Amino acid sequence: MSGYADFAAYVAELNDLLCTMNILTWDVRTQMPPEGSWTRGQQLATLTRLVQERFASDHMGRLLDAAEAEVRGEDADSYRVRAVRSTRDAYTIVRRVPAALVGELAVQRAVGQRVWEEAKPANDFARFAPNLKAMVGLSRELADAIGYVAHPYDALLLQYEPDMSAARLTALFDDLKAGILPLLKRIVDGGQPVAADFLYRTYPAAQQRAFALEIARQFGYDLQRGRVDASAHPFEISFTRQDVRMTTRYQENYMPGAVFGLFHETGHALYEQGVDPALTRSALTSDFLGQYAVGGVSFGTHESQSRLWENQIGRSRSFWQLHFARLQSYFPEQLAGVDVEQFYRSVNRVRPSLIRVEADEVTYNLHIMLRVEIEMGLLDGSIAVDDLSELWRAKMTEYLGVVPPTDTEGVLQDIHWSSAQFGTFPAYTIGNVMSAQFMQAARRDVAGLDDELAAGNYTPLREWLTANIYRHGRAFSPEELLQRTTGEGLTPRPYLAYLREKYDELYPV
Amino acid sequence: MSGYADFAAYVAELNDLLCTMNILTWDVRTQMPPEGSWTRGQQLATLTRLVQERFASDHMGRLLDAAEAEVRGEDADSYRVRAVRSTRDAYTIVRRVPAALVGELAVQRAVGQRVWEEAKPANDFARFAPNLKAMVGLSRELADAIGYVAHPYDALLLQYEPDMSAARLTALFDDLKAGILPLLKRIVDGGQPVAADFLYRTYPAAQQRAFALEIARQFGYDLQRGRVDASAHPFEISFTRQDVRMTTRYQENYMPGAVFGLFHETGHALYEQGVDPALTRSALTSDFLGQYAVGGVSFGTHESQSRLWENQIGRSRSFWQLHFARLQSYFPEQLAGVDVEQFYRSVNRVRPSLIRVEADEVTYNLHIMLRVEIEMGLLDGSIAVDDLSELWRAKMTEYLGVVPPTDTEGVLQDIHWSSAQFGTFPAYTIGNVMSAQFMQAARRDVAGLDDELAAGNYTPLREWLTANIYRHGRAFSPEELLQRTTGEGLTPRPYLAYLREKYDELYPV
Repeated sequence: MSGYADFAAYVAELNDLLCTMNILTWDVRTQMPPEGSWTRGQQLATLTRLVQERFASDHMGRLLDAAEAEVRGEDADSYRVRAVRSTRDAYTIVRRVPAALVGELAVQRAVGQRVWEEAKPANDFARFAPNLKAMVGLSRELADAIGYVAHPYDALLLQYEPDMSAARLTALFDDLKAGILPLLKRIVDGGQPVAADFLYRTYPAAQQRAFALEIARQFGYDLQRGRVDASAHPFEISFTRQDVRMTTRYQENYMPGAVFGLFHETGHALYEQGVDPALTRSALTSDFLGQYAVGGVSFGTHESQSRLWENQIGRSRSFWQLHFARLQSYFPEQLAGVDVEQFYRSVNRVRPSLIRVEADEVTYNLHIMLRVEIEMGLLDGSIAVDDLSELWRAKMTEYLGVVPPTDTEGVLQDIHWSSAQFGTFPAYTIGNVMSAQFMQAARRDVAGLDDELAAGNYTPLREWLTANIYRHGRAFSPEELLQRTTGEGLTPRPYLAYLREKYDELYPV
Repeated sequence: MSGYADFAAYVAELNDLLCTMNILTWDVRTQMPPEGSWTRGQQLATLTRLVQERFASDHMGRLLDAAEAEVRGEDADSYRVRAVRSTRDAYTIVRRVPAALVGELAVQRAVGQRVWEEAKPANDFARFAPNLKAMVGLSRELADAIGYVAHPYDALLLQYEPDMSAARLTALFDDLKAGILPLLKRIVDGGQPVAADFLYRTYPAAQQRAFALEIARQFGYDLQRGRVDASAHPFEISFTRQDVRMTTRYQENYMPGAVFGLFHETGHALYEQGVDPALTRSALTSDFLGQYAVGGVSFGTHESQSRLWENQIGRSRSFWQLHFARLQSYFPEQLAGVDVEQFYRSVNRVRPSLIRVEADEVTYNLHIMLRVEIEMGLLDGSIAVDDLSELWRAKMTEYLGVVPPTDTEGVLQDIHWSSAQFGTFPAYTIGNVMSAQFMQAARRDVAGLDDELAAGNYTPLREWLTANIYRHGRAFSPEELLQRTTGEGLTPRPYLAYLREKYDELYPV
């Protein structure tokens, strides 16, 4: 065996273990009987420890040295070079973080989640605050251990968004606010009502599933290499490109939830199913920091694909002009008397609201900015946990003009902080921004793309995305992918143009 | 940590990995999309290698030494002593088998199964014969490596039936044949026809499932710690006692398959759900030779429970006297005009047939003896692979009076030999024999047991089985369990008495 082959063989086994952890996690969320959770937790903990031990080992260091020596001088963009480099980057970070800190964080995450699960329905932020403080403290230690120049948040972002920083996010947010806040104000002040009562009729889950899956397959989701289940919180997960599963949640009295939810997960799934087969069981389908098997290169890039298929395609007028009759054939009574234009407007209705996951395209990013700004402040010490409840209300008033009456609908709303996932929220907004950049580039490269989409031919778009993004797995950073496809880095211009064009038409002055 | 605690902690991690392998296997058989199989095979291979490495390590040897030193002098029947002893036994065997042989067997098994899958439908034994020869040869090497005194088959049996040997099996079979062959001859010669056409009407799978699951829950199956799925080949599998799953196969034009199939798997599942919680993640719920997590002590003991609940309970007259009306309420049209006595007789109809898995209680063991006698002969060299096709027909004629027209229905019938599982067939007959011994002991110990069963109160029986068998996991050998509960070892007398009593009444002279 050569140095690289030894390295690749060892990494292949690690990838097998990461895929195995994903399978166990999928089972927990979709199949496991209630009493299985304690021992399942032990099984996952053992696998986590094993992967951690094997990845952070001196042996891995020697394999990396040998592989680096072998690939030196090869094409810097080749998968071999990229596999070694990304593994070295993760190895360097993992070796910097003391095992004791990893252990403490794991304990605090488990405790924090339990306390949050009780505090949220009880509207009792004071109960959760001590845990949040502990997790902020440990996350600062984590940031110190990983290392950073400008801001502790930068170190945490390394785990999810390698090219991103607090400073870049702040600048991005300023640009977005400058575009979105006036647009939202105009829509709210305009006060045009949009009918949507028909979305809340009774829609049997089986038909919701049948329609959504029909569209998922038209988008290109391959059921020979996947399956769709129900779960409380929808997700996509992969165990190599050969087995990419997704879930959705059916609400019988609100049809868009499951349908757009499945379009969203389909975007994630197309990314994973589109990875180059040569990257199967490789470092370029392994996230060694997050300890899971994944083909997408960052949270934000992944989200760019779910949002592209859900929003840019699935919420477009041309999509419903083509598919609304089919939807009506599944729900003839529920949608009787509703025309395609009414339907299109109903699923694009803009309304400032309290809950992030229910937000429309115009308000969604404001929910994210609020959270990320708080996270940055918590990490650098400029915001105190005890002030969060009030700060949340103030920012909601400023950005959205609505105030949560309780912390349940406010600062306790999301699960993310209950397990110290600081740094993951930016992905949602980055994803939105990237999705518009990618669509712009695809339109530039693929002649007649919009005509194809309007005709329900999704192959040209999927093939462009596969060739430019999906197939590369984790070989190129988000910024590199943007540069290679659009000629520039992350910029909010195409996204803001998309929002303005769409919503100026929906909500004329 | 003490010597024993260190040992137990290391074993707990191994058990986590064995449970993990079981989860992946369950997923393969019930959920996995078709294209997932190649990478799933890699994932399972990596886990197998990892468990093997960790179990057969020098480190394990040192842990065993220290644990043995610590438990020396403790109660020989205590779980601690038993955990150490059973692990030492498995360790000794595993260390005797060269890694090269394990690897060769794994390769031959994979190849053998593939060739068999083609050869069986093609009725082409000659195609499979070379693979079978290779697997017999490697199994002899395995027997030599494990070591034996009297017969190479004894070494293979160690993996599945620790107290059993070729000589004991031969004696057992002689006794069984002396009882069963005359009984069968009398039934066949009597020629009484039994109506069963109503079993082959159209029975929707959903109702089959509902009825069978209702009974499984009455037997005591806990759905908080389990779930039921469909699969091509029914099985039960556990990932600790907290998560014990089973499957069945629905045939819409033959109702007993899924219903009795689920009774059968429920017996296996009650065993696993009944293991003492103290044995969770221990050596006494780990099969280190077979590399899977299991609470039952041997294949035969496990089978004794599936057969007890399926046959001794589920095929009894008193069972159907209680439950037939309920079954009829699920299938009013299909069972219109059928009375309970007709139904009871139809599901206990005796007919010599070609296919083992379709055989009734009287003929079933003859199918097993034929196979086990061939296996013993293959291992000791007294039977040649090339003679198997003819030998199979000769034995079928002798035992059952029917001759398979093809090898598809003959020597190629079962999957077992395709992956060199020599030594697993005896479990089915041992299970039948043990089930009658356990029922006899339960009747002795539990006053009014048959009245309780007739009234549908399965708790006293299940509690007796749990206290005497299930809770001990793998702490006591099959022979010890029999001695402790019945006062004697394996004996066919109660089983033969059960058969005679039941079938003399069903088929009077």
